[in-house]
Amino acid sequence: MSTSANLGTSRKIKLLVSYDGTDFCGWQKQKDHAWASDLPSIQESMELGLAKIFNHPVSVSASGRTDAGVHAIGQVCDFETDREKLPQDLRWALKAHLPPSIVIKKVWQAPLEFHSTLSAEGKTYRYWLWNNACGSALLHRYTWWIRKRLDLEKLNREAACLIGTHDFKSFQSAGTLVKTTVRRIERIQFRAKNKNLVEFSITGNGFLKQMVRNIVGTLIDSEIREQSLPLHEILAAKNRQVAGQTAPPQGLYLERVKYPDFLDKLCKPL
Amino acid sequence: MSTSANLGTSRKIKLLVSYDGTDFCGWQKQKDHAWASDLPSIQESMELGLAKIFNHPVSVSASGRTDAGVHAIGQVCDFETDREKLPQDLRWALKAHLPPSIVIKKVWQAPLEFHSTLSAEGKTYRYWLWNNACGSALLHRYTWWIRKRLDLEKLNREAACLIGTHDFKSFQSAGTLVKTTVRRIERIQFRAKNKNLVEFSITGNGFLKQMVRNIVGTLIDSEIREQSLPLHEILAAKNRQVAGQTAPPQGLYLERVKYPDFLDKLCKPL
Repeated sequence: MSTSANLGTSRKIKLLVSYDGTDFCGWQKQKDHAWASDLPSIQESMELGLAKIFNHPVSVSASGRTDAGVHAIGQVCDFETDREKLPQDLRWALKAHLPPSIVIKKVWQAPLEFHSTLSAEGKTYRYWLWNNACGSALLHRYTWWIRKRLDLEKLNREAACLIGTHDFKSFQSAGTLVKTTVRRIERIQFRAKNKNLVEFSITGNGFLKQMVRNIVGTLIDSEIREQSLPLHEILAAKNRQVAGQTAPPQGLYLERVKYPDFLDKLCKPL
Repeated sequence: MSTSANLGTSRKIKLLVSYDGTDFCGWQKQKDHAWASDLPSIQESMELGLAKIFNHPVSVSASGRTDAGVHAIGQVCDFETDREKLPQDLRWALKAHLPPSIVIKKVWQAPLEFHSTLSAEGKTYRYWLWNNACGSALLHRYTWWIRKRLDLEKLNREAACLIGTHDFKSFQSAGTLVKTTVRRIERIQFRAKNKNLVEFSITGNGFLKQMVRNIVGTLIDSEIREQSLPLHEILAAKNRQVAGQTAPPQGLYLERVKYPDFLDKLCKPL
Protein backbone atom coordinates (compact mmCIF):
# COMPACT_ATOMS: atom_id res chain seq x y z
CA MET A 1 0.00 0.00 0.00
CA SER A 2 1.41 3.34 -0.99
CA THR A 3 0.35 5.00 2.28
CA SER A 4 2.22 2.62 4.55
CA ALA A 5 5.17 2.40 2.13
CA ASN A 6 5.48 6.17 2.39
CA LEU A 7 5.11 6.37 6.15
CA GLY A 8 8.84 6.17 6.68
CA THR A 9 9.49 9.19 4.46
CA SER A 10 6.56 11.26 5.74
CA ARG A 11 7.53 14.67 7.04
CA LYS A 12 5.71 17.06 9.28
CA ILE A 13 5.92 20.75 8.36
CA LYS A 14 5.15 23.44 10.91
CA LEU A 15 4.13 26.95 9.79
CA LEU A 16 3.89 30.30 11.58
CA VAL A 17 1.00 32.08 9.87
CA SER A 18 -0.48 35.57 9.91
CA TYR A 19 -3.84 36.40 8.36
CA ASP A 20 -6.36 39.19 7.99
CA GLY A 21 -9.65 37.63 9.07
CA THR A 22 -11.70 40.23 7.15
CA ASP A 23 -11.65 38.23 3.93
CA PHE A 24 -12.52 34.83 5.42
CA CYS A 25 -15.41 32.94 7.02
CA GLY A 26 -12.97 31.89 9.75
CA TRP A 27 -10.38 29.15 10.00
CA GLN A 28 -12.88 26.43 9.13
CA LYS A 29 -15.80 26.50 6.70
CA GLN A 30 -19.13 26.64 8.60
CA LYS A 31 -21.05 24.63 6.00
CA ASP A 32 -24.04 23.61 8.09
CA HIS A 33 -24.74 26.87 9.79
CA ALA A 34 -27.31 29.44 8.91
CA TRP A 35 -24.59 32.11 8.99
CA ALA A 36 -22.45 30.28 6.44
CA SER A 37 -20.96 32.94 4.15
CA ASP A 38 -19.64 32.89 0.61
CA LEU A 39 -16.19 33.79 1.86
CA PRO A 40 -13.54 31.07 1.74
CA SER A 41 -12.08 29.64 4.94
CA ILE A 42 -8.43 30.16 5.80
CA GLN A 43 -7.96 26.40 6.04
CA GLU A 44 -9.25 25.69 2.52
CA SER A 45 -7.25 28.59 1.04
CA MET A 46 -4.07 27.15 2.58
CA GLU A 47 -4.88 23.57 1.58
CA LEU A 48 -5.49 24.66 -2.02
CA GLY A 49 -2.18 26.53 -2.16
CA LEU A 50 -0.19 23.72 -0.58
CA ALA A 51 -1.78 21.08 -2.84
CA LYS A 52 -0.58 23.06 -5.88
CA ILE A 53 2.98 23.16 -4.56
CA PHE A 54 3.19 19.57 -3.31
CA ASN A 55 1.10 18.05 -6.07
CA HIS A 56 -0.92 15.96 -3.60
CA PRO A 57 -3.91 16.74 -1.36
CA VAL A 58 -2.81 18.43 1.86
CA SER A 59 -4.69 18.50 5.15
CA VAL A 60 -3.76 21.46 7.38
CA SER A 61 -4.32 21.62 11.17
CA ALA A 62 -4.10 24.78 13.26
CA SER A 63 -3.59 25.46 16.97
CA GLY A 64 -7.24 26.48 17.11
CA ARG A 65 -10.10 27.64 14.94
CA THR A 66 -10.54 31.37 14.72
CA ASP A 67 -14.00 32.79 14.05
CA ALA A 68 -15.01 34.80 10.98
CA GLY A 69 -13.36 38.22 11.09
CA VAL A 70 -10.77 37.27 13.74
CA HIS A 71 -7.14 37.93 12.79
CA ALA A 72 -3.91 36.08 13.50
CA ILE A 73 -0.36 37.31 13.91
CA GLY A 74 1.07 34.03 15.21
CA GLN A 75 -1.24 31.16 14.27
CA VAL A 76 0.62 27.82 14.14
CA CYS A 77 -0.33 25.20 11.56
CA ASP A 78 1.02 21.83 10.48
CA PHE A 79 0.64 19.36 7.65
CA GLU A 80 2.29 16.19 6.41
CA THR A 81 3.91 15.44 3.09
CA ASP A 82 5.73 12.41 1.72
CA ARG A 83 7.45 14.42 -0.98
CA GLU A 84 11.19 13.83 -0.66
CA LYS A 85 12.20 17.16 -2.11
CA LEU A 86 10.72 20.35 -0.69
CA PRO A 87 10.67 23.60 -2.68
CA GLN A 88 13.87 25.64 -2.21
CA ASP A 89 11.99 28.39 -0.39
CA LEU A 90 8.58 27.14 0.71
CA ARG A 91 7.58 30.52 2.15
CA TRP A 92 8.23 32.17 -1.18
CA ALA A 93 6.56 29.38 -3.17
CA LEU A 94 3.43 29.74 -1.02
CA LYS A 95 3.38 33.50 -1.67
CA ALA A 96 2.39 32.74 -5.26
CA HIS A 97 -0.41 30.38 -4.24
CA LEU A 98 -1.96 32.24 -1.32
CA PRO A 99 -4.05 35.42 -1.21
CA PRO A 100 -2.18 38.48 0.16
CA SER A 101 -4.25 38.29 3.35
CA ILE A 102 -2.48 35.04 4.38
CA VAL A 103 1.26 35.28 5.01
CA ILE A 104 3.59 32.44 6.02
CA LYS A 105 6.13 33.99 8.38
CA LYS A 106 8.26 30.94 9.25
CA VAL A 107 8.58 27.32 8.14
CA TRP A 108 10.08 24.42 10.13
CA GLN A 109 10.47 20.70 9.70
CA ALA A 110 8.83 19.37 12.89
CA PRO A 111 9.04 15.95 14.55
CA LEU A 112 6.18 13.65 13.50
CA GLU A 113 4.71 13.75 17.01
CA PHE A 114 4.19 17.52 16.74
CA HIS A 115 0.54 18.50 16.37
CA SER A 116 -0.36 22.20 16.28
CA THR A 117 -3.65 21.63 18.16
CA LEU A 118 -2.79 18.85 20.60
CA SER A 119 0.77 19.91 21.46
CA ALA A 120 -0.19 23.50 22.33
CA GLU A 121 0.47 24.41 25.97
CA GLY A 122 -0.88 27.93 25.94
CA LYS A 123 -1.96 30.92 23.87
CA THR A 124 -1.84 34.67 23.95
CA TYR A 125 -4.63 36.71 22.39
CA ARG A 126 -4.79 40.45 22.02
CA TYR A 127 -7.90 42.55 21.54
CA TRP A 128 -7.72 46.09 20.14
CA LEU A 129 -10.16 48.79 21.20
CA TRP A 130 -10.38 52.18 19.49
CA ASN A 131 -11.28 54.60 22.23
CA ASN A 132 -12.17 58.09 21.07
CA ALA A 133 -15.15 60.22 20.17
CA CYS A 134 -15.18 59.76 16.40
CA GLY A 135 -13.92 56.22 15.59
CA SER A 136 -11.14 55.26 13.19
CA ALA A 137 -11.74 55.05 9.43
CA LEU A 138 -8.51 53.15 8.81
CA LEU A 139 -8.78 50.71 11.72
CA HIS A 140 -12.50 49.97 11.64
CA ARG A 141 -11.79 46.42 10.41
CA TYR A 142 -9.14 45.93 13.11
CA THR A 143 -10.58 47.42 16.29
CA TRP A 144 -13.78 47.70 18.31
CA TRP A 145 -14.79 51.31 18.63
CA ILE A 146 -15.76 52.39 22.16
CA ARG A 147 -16.82 56.01 22.39
CA LYS A 148 -16.80 56.42 26.18
CA ARG A 149 -13.34 57.05 27.63
CA LEU A 150 -12.23 53.80 29.31
CA ASP A 151 -10.70 53.75 32.78
CA LEU A 152 -7.84 51.27 32.22
CA GLU A 153 -6.83 51.10 35.88
CA LYS A 154 -10.36 50.18 36.88
CA LEU A 155 -10.58 47.62 34.07
CA ASN A 156 -7.29 46.04 35.18
CA ARG A 157 -8.44 45.87 38.81
CA GLU A 158 -11.67 44.23 37.67
CA ALA A 159 -9.96 41.77 35.31
CA ALA A 160 -7.39 40.61 37.90
CA CYS A 161 -9.89 38.21 39.49
CA LEU A 162 -9.69 36.03 36.36
CA ILE A 163 -6.01 35.23 36.90
CA GLY A 164 -5.46 31.67 38.12
CA THR A 165 -7.35 28.42 37.59
CA HIS A 166 -11.11 28.85 37.39
CA ASP A 167 -14.23 27.42 35.84
CA PHE A 168 -14.89 29.85 32.97
CA LYS A 169 -18.35 28.51 32.11
CA SER A 170 -19.84 32.02 32.35
CA PHE A 171 -17.60 33.08 29.44
CA GLN A 172 -18.21 30.14 27.10
CA SER A 173 -20.51 30.61 24.12
CA ALA A 174 -22.95 27.83 23.29
CA GLY A 175 -22.28 25.32 20.55
CA THR A 176 -19.34 23.15 21.59
CA LEU A 177 -18.92 20.16 23.85
CA VAL A 178 -15.82 20.24 26.02
CA LYS A 179 -14.86 17.87 28.84
CA THR A 180 -14.15 20.67 31.24
CA THR A 181 -14.68 24.42 31.34
CA VAL A 182 -11.78 24.89 33.78
CA ARG A 183 -8.87 26.90 32.38
CA ARG A 184 -5.81 28.67 33.76
CA ILE A 185 -5.20 32.35 33.00
CA GLU A 186 -1.63 33.51 33.57
CA ARG A 187 -1.76 37.11 32.50
CA ILE A 188 -4.43 39.66 31.67
CA GLN A 189 -3.88 43.35 30.96
CA PHE A 190 -5.32 46.49 29.43
CA ARG A 191 -2.78 49.10 28.33
CA ALA A 192 -2.76 52.22 26.18
CA LYS A 193 -0.85 51.64 22.93
CA ASN A 194 -1.30 55.29 22.00
CA LYS A 195 -3.72 58.16 22.59
CA ASN A 196 -6.71 56.27 21.20
CA LEU A 197 -5.69 52.63 20.92
CA VAL A 198 -6.19 50.32 23.91
CA GLU A 199 -4.69 46.85 23.85
CA PHE A 200 -6.16 44.04 25.93
CA SER A 201 -3.85 41.04 26.25
CA ILE A 202 -4.59 37.64 27.78
CA THR A 203 -2.41 34.52 28.18
CA GLY A 204 -3.70 31.15 29.32
CA ASN A 205 -3.35 27.41 28.91
CA GLY A 206 -6.44 27.25 26.71
CA PHE A 207 -9.60 29.14 25.83
CA LEU A 208 -13.24 28.10 25.56
CA LYS A 209 -15.44 29.06 22.62
CA GLN A 210 -15.43 32.88 22.23
CA MET A 211 -14.02 33.14 25.77
CA VAL A 212 -11.75 36.11 25.01
CA ARG A 213 -14.52 38.02 23.23
CA ASN A 214 -16.94 37.24 26.07
CA ILE A 215 -14.45 38.45 28.69
CA VAL A 216 -13.74 41.67 26.76
CA GLY A 217 -17.45 42.27 26.09
CA THR A 218 -18.34 41.74 29.76
CA LEU A 219 -15.57 44.05 30.98
CA ILE A 220 -16.58 46.78 28.53
CA ASP A 221 -20.23 46.37 29.55
CA SER A 222 -19.24 46.89 33.18
CA GLU A 223 -17.52 50.15 32.19
CA ILE A 224 -20.19 51.51 29.87
CA ARG A 225 -23.41 50.30 31.43
CA GLU A 226 -22.17 50.51 35.01
CA GLN A 227 -23.57 47.01 35.30
CA SER A 228 -23.96 46.16 38.97
CA LEU A 229 -22.58 42.60 39.05
CA PRO A 230 -18.79 42.61 39.64
CA LEU A 231 -16.67 40.29 37.48
CA HIS A 232 -15.80 37.87 40.29
CA GLU A 233 -19.50 37.24 40.87
CA ILE A 234 -20.09 36.66 37.15
CA LEU A 235 -17.20 34.16 37.18
CA ALA A 236 -18.62 32.42 40.29
CA ALA A 237 -22.10 32.16 38.74
CA LYS A 238 -20.86 29.70 36.05
CA ASN A 239 -23.70 30.91 33.88
CA ARG A 240 -23.32 32.57 30.47
CA GLN A 241 -26.60 34.46 31.01
CA VAL A 242 -25.17 36.70 33.73
CA ALA A 243 -22.09 37.74 31.71
CA GLY A 244 -22.07 40.54 29.13
CA GLN A 245 -22.02 40.81 25.36
CA THR A 246 -19.62 39.03 22.99
CA ALA A 247 -17.14 41.63 21.73
CA PRO A 248 -17.12 41.82 17.91
CA PRO A 249 -14.59 39.60 16.09
CA GLN A 250 -12.58 42.25 14.23
CA GLY A 251 -10.73 43.44 17.36
CA LEU A 252 -9.34 39.98 18.17
CA TYR A 253 -5.91 38.67 17.18
CA LEU A 254 -4.34 35.29 17.94
CA GLU A 255 -0.90 36.53 18.89
CA ARG A 256 1.20 33.58 20.00
CA VAL A 257 0.93 29.84 20.61
CA LYS A 258 3.23 28.21 23.15
CA TYR A 259 4.57 24.66 22.69
CA PRO A 260 6.76 22.60 25.05
CA ASP A 261 10.44 23.58 24.85
CA PHE A 262 11.52 20.06 23.87
CA LEU A 263 9.26 20.21 20.79
CA ASP A 264 10.50 23.71 19.86
CA LYS A 265 14.06 22.39 19.98
CA LEU A 266 13.19 19.51 17.63
CA CYS A 267 11.78 21.92 15.00
CA LYS A 268 14.35 22.82 12.33
CA PRO A 269 13.89 26.05 10.35
CA LEU A 270 13.51 25.46 6.60
CA MET B 1 -35.32 84.25 -5.55
CA SER B 2 -34.72 81.87 -2.71
CA THR B 3 -31.01 81.51 -3.51
CA SER B 4 -30.21 85.19 -3.22
CA ALA B 5 -32.60 85.63 -0.31
CA ASN B 6 -30.69 82.95 1.55
CA LEU B 7 -27.23 84.22 0.68
CA GLY B 8 -27.04 86.26 3.81
CA THR B 9 -27.65 83.26 6.05
CA SER B 10 -25.49 80.84 4.07
CA ARG B 11 -22.79 79.21 6.14
CA LYS B 12 -19.63 77.45 5.08
CA ILE B 13 -18.75 74.32 7.03
CA LYS B 14 -15.19 72.96 7.01
CA LEU B 15 -14.51 69.29 7.82
CA LEU B 16 -11.37 67.34 8.67
CA VAL B 17 -11.95 63.88 7.22
CA SER B 18 -10.24 60.51 7.40
CA TYR B 19 -11.12 57.62 5.09
CA ASP B 20 -10.07 54.13 4.14
CA GLY B 21 -9.74 54.24 0.35
CA THR B 22 -10.16 50.46 0.03
CA ASP B 23 -13.94 50.65 -0.15
CA PHE B 24 -14.19 53.51 -2.65
CA CYS B 25 -13.60 54.30 -6.32
CA GLY B 26 -11.74 57.43 -5.17
CA TRP B 27 -12.86 60.88 -4.10
CA GLN B 28 -14.84 61.45 -7.29
CA LYS B 29 -16.85 59.00 -9.38
CA GLN B 30 -15.02 58.18 -12.60
CA LYS B 31 -18.16 57.77 -14.69
CA ASP B 32 -16.70 58.03 -18.15
CA HIS B 33 -13.65 55.88 -17.67
CA ALA B 34 -13.16 52.29 -18.68
CA TRP B 35 -11.96 51.51 -15.14
CA ALA B 36 -15.14 52.85 -13.54
CA SER B 37 -15.95 50.51 -10.68
CA ASP B 38 -19.14 49.66 -8.84
CA LEU B 39 -17.71 51.10 -5.65
CA PRO B 40 -19.18 54.40 -4.44
CA SER B 41 -17.07 57.53 -4.37
CA ILE B 42 -16.17 59.21 -1.10
CA GLN B 43 -17.73 62.44 -2.36
CA GLU B 44 -21.13 60.91 -3.10
CA SER B 45 -21.14 58.97 0.20
CA MET B 46 -20.55 62.22 2.07
CA GLU B 47 -23.08 64.18 0.03
CA LEU B 48 -25.74 61.53 0.67
CA GLY B 49 -25.07 61.55 4.41
CA LEU B 50 -25.05 65.35 4.67
CA ALA B 51 -28.23 65.68 2.58
CA LYS B 52 -30.03 63.44 5.09
CA ILE B 53 -28.91 65.58 8.01
CA PHE B 54 -29.50 69.00 6.42
CA ASN B 55 -32.59 68.04 4.46
CA HIS B 56 -31.33 69.75 1.31
CA PRO B 57 -28.90 68.67 -1.44
CA VAL B 58 -25.30 69.27 -0.40
CA SER B 59 -22.31 69.71 -2.68
CA VAL B 60 -18.99 68.82 -1.03
CA SER B 61 -15.55 70.03 -2.19
CA ALA B 62 -12.23 68.58 -1.06
CA SER B 63 -8.65 69.88 -1.04
CA GLY B 64 -7.95 67.45 -3.86
CA ARG B 65 -9.24 64.28 -5.47
CA THR B 66 -7.66 61.10 -4.22
CA ASP B 67 -7.48 58.07 -6.54
CA ALA B 68 -9.24 54.75 -5.96
CA GLY B 69 -7.58 52.92 -3.07
CA VAL B 70 -5.77 56.01 -1.72
CA HIS B 71 -6.40 56.78 1.96
CA ALA B 72 -6.73 60.04 3.88
CA ILE B 73 -5.88 60.93 7.45
CA GLY B 74 -6.32 64.67 7.05
CA GLN B 75 -8.44 65.43 3.99
CA VAL B 76 -10.16 68.81 4.24
CA CYS B 77 -13.64 69.31 2.79
CA ASP B 78 -16.21 72.08 2.76
CA PHE B 79 -19.85 72.61 1.92
CA GLU B 80 -22.47 75.32 2.24
CA THR B 81 -25.80 75.25 4.00
CA ASP B 82 -28.47 77.87 4.58
CA ARG B 83 -29.97 75.97 7.51
CA GLU B 84 -30.08 78.31 10.49
CA LYS B 85 -29.84 75.58 13.08
CA LEU B 86 -27.05 73.03 12.85
CA PRO B 87 -27.30 69.64 14.60
CA GLN B 88 -26.02 69.77 18.20
CA ASP B 89 -23.05 67.53 17.37
CA LEU B 90 -22.57 67.36 13.60
CA ARG B 91 -19.68 64.88 13.89
CA TRP B 92 -21.87 62.50 15.83
CA ALA B 93 -24.89 63.02 13.55
CA LEU B 94 -22.74 62.20 10.52
CA LYS B 95 -21.55 58.99 12.20
CA ALA B 96 -25.04 57.58 11.72
CA HIS B 97 -25.16 58.53 8.03
CA LEU B 98 -21.67 57.61 6.89
CA PRO B 99 -20.02 54.22 6.37
CA PRO B 100 -17.44 53.31 9.08
CA SER B 101 -14.65 53.84 6.53
CA ILE B 102 -15.32 57.63 6.51
CA VAL B 103 -14.76 59.47 9.78
CA ILE B 104 -15.26 63.20 10.44
CA LYS B 105 -12.52 64.19 12.87
CA LYS B 106 -13.25 67.91 13.26
CA VAL B 107 -15.92 70.40 12.22
CA TRP B 108 -15.56 74.17 11.92
CA GLN B 109 -17.69 77.06 10.76
CA ALA B 110 -15.46 78.67 8.11
CA PRO B 111 -15.61 82.12 6.50
CA LEU B 112 -17.53 82.12 3.22
CA GLU B 113 -14.34 82.84 1.25
CA PHE B 114 -12.78 79.58 2.47
CA HIS B 115 -12.55 76.94 -0.26
CA SER B 116 -10.88 73.62 0.54
CA THR B 117 -9.38 73.31 -2.96
CA LEU B 118 -8.57 76.91 -3.88
CA SER B 119 -7.43 78.12 -0.45
CA ALA B 120 -4.93 75.26 0.06
CA GLU B 121 -1.31 76.42 0.32
CA GLY B 122 0.34 73.05 0.61
CA LYS B 123 -0.05 69.36 1.34
CA THR B 124 1.77 66.53 3.03
CA TYR B 125 1.43 62.99 1.75
CA ARG B 126 2.87 59.86 3.27
CA TYR B 127 3.52 56.58 1.52
CA TRP B 128 3.93 53.33 3.47
CA LEU B 129 6.22 50.54 2.25
CA TRP B 130 6.28 47.11 3.85
CA ASN B 131 9.87 45.98 3.55
CA ASN B 132 10.51 42.35 4.48
CA ALA B 133 10.80 38.91 2.92
CA CYS B 134 7.24 37.67 3.44
CA GLY B 135 4.85 40.65 3.21
CA SER B 136 2.20 41.69 5.73
CA ALA B 137 -1.20 39.96 5.86
CA LEU B 138 -2.74 42.68 8.01
CA LEU B 139 -1.30 45.67 6.16
CA HIS B 140 -1.61 44.48 2.59
CA ARG B 141 -4.40 47.02 1.96
CA TYR B 142 -2.31 49.79 3.54
CA THR B 143 1.25 49.32 2.27
CA TRP B 144 3.24 48.48 -0.84
CA TRP B 145 5.25 45.32 -0.25
CA ILE B 146 8.91 45.54 -1.33
CA ARG B 147 10.83 42.32 -0.77
CA LYS B 148 14.36 43.63 -1.32
CA ARG B 149 15.86 45.39 1.70
CA LEU B 150 15.77 49.13 0.97
CA ASP B 151 18.77 51.38 1.60
CA LEU B 152 17.04 54.38 3.18
CA GLU B 153 20.16 56.55 3.28
CA LYS B 154 20.70 56.03 -0.42
CA LEU B 155 17.02 56.73 -1.15
CA ASN B 156 17.18 59.95 0.87
CA ARG B 157 20.35 61.09 -0.95
CA GLU B 158 18.67 60.36 -4.29
CA ALA B 159 15.36 62.05 -3.34
CA ALA B 160 17.03 65.26 -2.09
CA CYS B 161 17.39 66.63 -5.63
CA LEU B 162 13.59 67.08 -5.76
CA ILE B 163 13.59 69.65 -2.96
CA GLY B 164 13.00 73.17 -4.24
CA THR B 165 11.06 74.58 -7.18
CA HIS B 166 11.20 72.40 -10.29
CA ASP B 167 9.25 71.39 -13.36
CA PHE B 168 7.87 67.97 -12.33
CA LYS B 169 6.58 67.03 -15.79
CA SER B 170 8.48 63.71 -15.63
CA PHE B 171 6.34 62.71 -12.64
CA GLN B 172 2.93 63.70 -13.97
CA SER B 173 0.57 60.99 -15.20
CA ALA B 174 -1.39 61.65 -18.38
CA GLY B 175 -5.01 62.75 -18.35
CA THR B 176 -5.18 66.23 -16.86
CA LEU B 177 -4.63 69.71 -18.18
CA VAL B 178 -2.74 72.04 -15.86
CA LYS B 179 -1.40 75.52 -16.56
CA THR B 180 2.03 74.69 -15.24
CA THR B 181 3.88 71.57 -14.13
CA VAL B 182 6.17 73.62 -11.86
CA ARG B 183 5.78 72.82 -8.14
CA ARG B 184 7.75 73.48 -4.96
CA ILE B 185 8.77 70.59 -2.70
CA GLU B 186 9.71 71.63 0.83
CA ARG B 187 10.47 68.33 2.47
CA ILE B 188 11.01 64.75 1.35
CA GLN B 189 12.09 61.85 3.54
CA PHE B 190 12.26 58.09 3.91
CA ARG B 191 12.42 56.79 7.48
CA ALA B 192 12.00 53.47 9.27
CA LYS B 193 8.81 53.43 11.37
CA ASN B 194 9.71 50.00 12.71
CA LYS B 195 11.66 46.89 11.66
CA ASN B 196 9.61 46.37 8.50
CA LEU B 197 7.64 49.55 7.90
CA VAL B 198 9.20 52.37 5.89
CA GLU B 199 7.48 55.74 5.73
CA PHE B 200 8.03 58.10 2.83
CA SER B 201 6.85 61.63 3.52
CA ILE B 202 6.63 64.58 1.12
CA THR B 203 5.46 68.16 1.63
CA GLY B 204 4.93 70.66 -1.17
CA ASN B 205 2.82 73.55 -2.37
CA GLY B 206 0.89 71.29 -4.75
CA PHE B 207 1.07 67.98 -6.55
CA LEU B 208 0.48 66.94 -10.16
CA LYS B 209 -1.63 63.92 -11.10
CA GLN B 210 -0.19 60.82 -9.38
CA MET B 211 3.02 62.79 -8.72
CA VAL B 212 3.67 61.22 -5.30
CA ARG B 213 3.09 57.69 -6.57
CA ASN B 214 5.28 58.35 -9.61
CA ILE B 215 8.11 59.70 -7.43
CA VAL B 216 7.89 56.72 -5.04
CA GLY B 217 7.70 54.23 -7.93
CA THR B 218 10.71 55.79 -9.67
CA LEU B 219 12.79 55.82 -6.47
CA ILE B 220 11.93 52.19 -5.72
CA ASP B 221 12.74 51.22 -9.32
CA SER B 222 16.16 52.84 -8.94
CA GLU B 223 16.77 50.69 -5.83
CA ILE B 224 15.43 47.40 -7.15
CA ARG B 225 16.34 47.46 -10.81
CA GLU B 226 19.57 49.40 -10.34
CA GLN B 227 18.23 51.60 -13.10
CA SER B 228 21.07 53.66 -14.53
CA LEU B 229 19.44 57.08 -14.85
CA PRO B 230 19.84 59.12 -11.63
CA LEU B 231 16.79 60.97 -10.32
CA HIS B 232 18.12 64.46 -11.14
CA GLU B 233 18.44 63.45 -14.80
CA ILE B 234 14.90 62.03 -14.83
CA LEU B 235 13.69 65.33 -13.35
CA ALA B 236 15.66 67.34 -15.95
CA ALA B 237 14.28 65.25 -18.85
CA LYS B 238 10.71 66.59 -18.26
CA ASN B 239 9.43 63.42 -19.84
CA ARG B 240 7.18 60.86 -18.10
CA GLN B 241 8.64 58.09 -20.31
CA VAL B 242 12.04 58.17 -18.62
CA ALA B 243 10.65 57.94 -15.07
CA GLY B 244 9.69 54.68 -13.35
CA GLN B 245 6.48 52.92 -12.44
CA THR B 246 3.48 54.41 -10.61
CA ALA B 247 3.53 53.03 -7.06
CA PRO B 248 0.23 51.28 -6.20
CA PRO B 249 -2.50 53.40 -4.55
CA GLN B 250 -2.95 51.49 -1.28
CA GLY B 251 0.33 52.76 0.23
CA LEU B 252 -0.62 56.45 -0.17
CA TYR B 253 -2.21 58.66 2.50
CA LEU B 254 -3.17 62.33 2.28
CA GLU B 255 -1.86 63.39 5.67
CA ARG B 256 -2.31 67.13 6.02
CA VAL B 257 -3.52 70.17 4.09
CA LYS B 258 -2.10 73.57 4.92
CA TYR B 259 -4.20 76.75 4.69
CA PRO B 260 -3.15 80.38 5.28
CA ASP B 261 -2.98 81.25 8.98
CA PHE B 262 -5.51 84.08 8.63
CA LEU B 263 -8.10 81.58 7.30
CA ASP B 264 -7.32 79.07 10.06
CA LYS B 265 -7.93 81.81 12.61
CA LEU B 266 -11.32 82.63 11.08
CA CYS B 267 -12.49 78.99 11.39
CA LYS B 268 -14.50 78.37 14.56
CA PRO B 269 -14.72 74.82 15.94
CA LEU B 270 -18.29 73.51 16.08
